[in-house]
Amino acid sequence: MKARVHVMLKNGVLDPQGEAVRHALGQLGFDGVEGVRQGKVIELDLAETDADKARETVTAMCEKLLANTVIESYSVEVS
Amino acid sequence: MKARVHVMLKNGVLDPQGEAVRHALGQLGFDGVEGVRQGKVIELDLAETDADKARETVTAMCEKLLANTVIESYSVEVS
Repeated sequence: MKARVHVMLKNGVLDPQGEAVRHALGQLGFDGVEGVRQGKVIELDLAETDADKARETVTAMCEKLLANTVIESYSVEVS
Repeated sequence: MKARVHVMLKNGVLDPQGEAVRHALGQLGFDGVEGVRQGKVIELDLAETDADKARETVTAMCEKLLANTVIESYSVEVS
């Protein structure tokens, strides 16, 4: 199965990468950009064939390694 | 409107971040991880209210700033 994980900084946590992108877009002439948040996307190829088990495993991966749950939130899609 | 951009290294381009994650998952006891690719996700809040125009603008942002199209591919979702 394939799984896709999105890891984003939680709302309220300062996102300097996103701010830098917003600033650079403004300098390039892109107006009307009100906010930018940048995060990570991790695509996993798993040997597991059961979607529920795969989701459970990937959630455990997020808790243990992929996300810093103090400041980051994550979401898991399995397909 | 909100737009979400995914930027991933193209297939065939070495992804050391993804490899590091795969290795770390193996060491943590997660078996059956056959491949990991890591990319960026960028969420934009736009003043634009027309979906087609927003998509066009964000595609231009990708070409000019958000993605290095030599080695990275991108996809744009507008909602």
